[in-house]
Amino acid sequence: MTAPFADRLADAVLTKGSSLVVGLDPDPARFPEALVGTGVGSDREATAAAILAFNTAVIEEVAPFACAVKPQSAYYEAWGAPGVAAYEATIARAHEANLLVIGDVKRGDIGSTATAYAAGHLLAPGSADAITVNPYLGTDSIEPFVKAAQEGGGGLFILVRTSNPSAADIQDLQADGKAIHDHVAGLVTGWGANTVGENGYSSVGAVVGATRPQELASLREALPQAWLLIPGVGAQGGKAADIACAYDERGLGAVVNSSRGILYAYGDPGASEWRAAIAGAARTLRDELAEASGATGVQQGT
Amino acid sequence: MTAPFADRLADAVLTKGSSLVVGLDPDPARFPEALVGTGVGSDREATAAAILAFNTAVIEEVAPFACAVKPQSAYYEAWGAPGVAAYEATIARAHEANLLVIGDVKRGDIGSTATAYAAGHLLAPGSADAITVNPYLGTDSIEPFVKAAQEGGGGLFILVRTSNPSAADIQDLQADGKAIHDHVAGLVTGWGANTVGENGYSSVGAVVGATRPQELASLREALPQAWLLIPGVGAQGGKAADIACAYDERGLGAVVNSSRGILYAYGDPGASEWRAAIAGAARTLRDELAEASGATGVQQGT
Repeated sequence: MTAPFADRLADAVLTKGSSLVVGLDPDPARFPEALVGTGVGSDREATAAAILAFNTAVIEEVAPFACAVKPQSAYYEAWGAPGVAAYEATIARAHEANLLVIGDVKRGDIGSTATAYAAGHLLAPGSADAITVNPYLGTDSIEPFVKAAQEGGGGLFILVRTSNPSAADIQDLQADGKAIHDHVAGLVTGWGANTVGENGYSSVGAVVGATRPQELASLREALPQAWLLIPGVGAQGGKAADIACAYDERGLGAVVNSSRGILYAYGDPGASEWRAAIAGAARTLRDELAEASGATGVQQGT
Repeated sequence: MTAPFADRLADAVLTKGSSLVVGLDPDPARFPEALVGTGVGSDREATAAAILAFNTAVIEEVAPFACAVKPQSAYYEAWGAPGVAAYEATIARAHEANLLVIGDVKRGDIGSTATAYAAGHLLAPGSADAITVNPYLGTDSIEPFVKAAQEGGGGLFILVRTSNPSAADIQDLQADGKAIHDHVAGLVTGWGANTVGENGYSSVGAVVGATRPQELASLREALPQAWLLIPGVGAQGGKAADIACAYDERGLGAVVNSSRGILYAYGDPGASEWRAAIAGAARTLRDELAEASGATGVQQGT
């Protein structure tokens, strides 16, 4: 039987000495020229093949420096069924490289539908180890995902406070003296109560943006048992040092995603050393996060 | 150039004399025996083929009685890339039958990602005419969808108040003297302000459940220019008569979804007259909705 996701993630962070999650948001318009053959960016099959080639290279380069990768489903769905096949193949490549996979799908729907989403994205053979979930529909929309996570050793990251400027529109509205995202944090604690693993963390985690450090600290306190998935470092403006508060004394409790800052670290699509640039960006951010987290373990990749 | 979705939907409702949307939530465990060959319900390709065969039959039977179909993405994603291919083929079949398609995908993500979702689900050749969208991430997560809708003649239905029991967890929290779903309704009005078509309705609509009639009336008032997509009639307990308040005097302004109550109207998978049962259930609900809406047009299918 697969161990609970919360413990598998802790093992990965400790073994790798890394809390870095590399977001796989493949944008063919920014791919290295070497990968851009006929039809890439227009034909669905050709684009899906280029996406898989790019992701395969990225996975090989970042595997020593990351605990997980996070494919963003939108960039695959943009190319229809062939893109979704590339998403599935990307998960397989990441697993071969011994990386955990967080499927960034942000699904959320009524109970019967949530059961179908959980079947496809958490329980199907070859599916991700964890997925992101949107809480707007409330408890009965989350329970099928929690049940699937418990059955299959999977994990969830519930959107609590996202990193985009308009997150405030709904998430920061004040109800009964606290923000909506605080209400959601309370719900997340309840949803995950029965999934706390050996390391003290639940397999029901939370997405909490890094763009407002004070909010991160307060949500860390409100979510003591939740793994935090922190986006917004890099292209979105968050800094590694600002997230020290998210980690416990073992360097556990938070993982940090960077997508564009690593994937396109080479800048110019004509750059010949694009793979080295990707590896270098991943190594640098891993080191910055290790310093922020106070982790003392030996890093695997050098 | 494609006409705005809001006007295309009005035309469909008036031409068909129907505000019925048939939800395509294919569950192989409930399919007619005649469609369940080897591997259906386990093998992905075989199941996807059965889903398409079922949907094709449903589309043929309900086409005279419905203005649109609403494939629920979860039931296709459950079977991976082959399931997504069946989703795409289902859209094509519905278009051949002159039905509008509302893709029930409930996506929602930060701006750059929302742009990718909009590309795949609204702008790609063969994509749906409209999709459902989750508002939890706020304005900058919605704008790319609105832009795509304006460019391509597509539509959106933003989740405002859903029909499931736990919707209250977040959507009914009170902030500044009104419920979160009322705040979202206000945002929806703003998001759609520049997309109002000839008939007075915007291409940025709203999902509003039918399970609490008073709430429906108050949201109708708060969303005077929004097409309402009303789920929850039938299997979820809502009654057709309860939704009269959602329509204007022309019988426009609302469409009503029923999924399981029509798809599985035959009950027993061994029933030989399953197609007739599906057609009959669609016709009955169309008639009930026409009565509730006060629509006086002649219905097309008899």
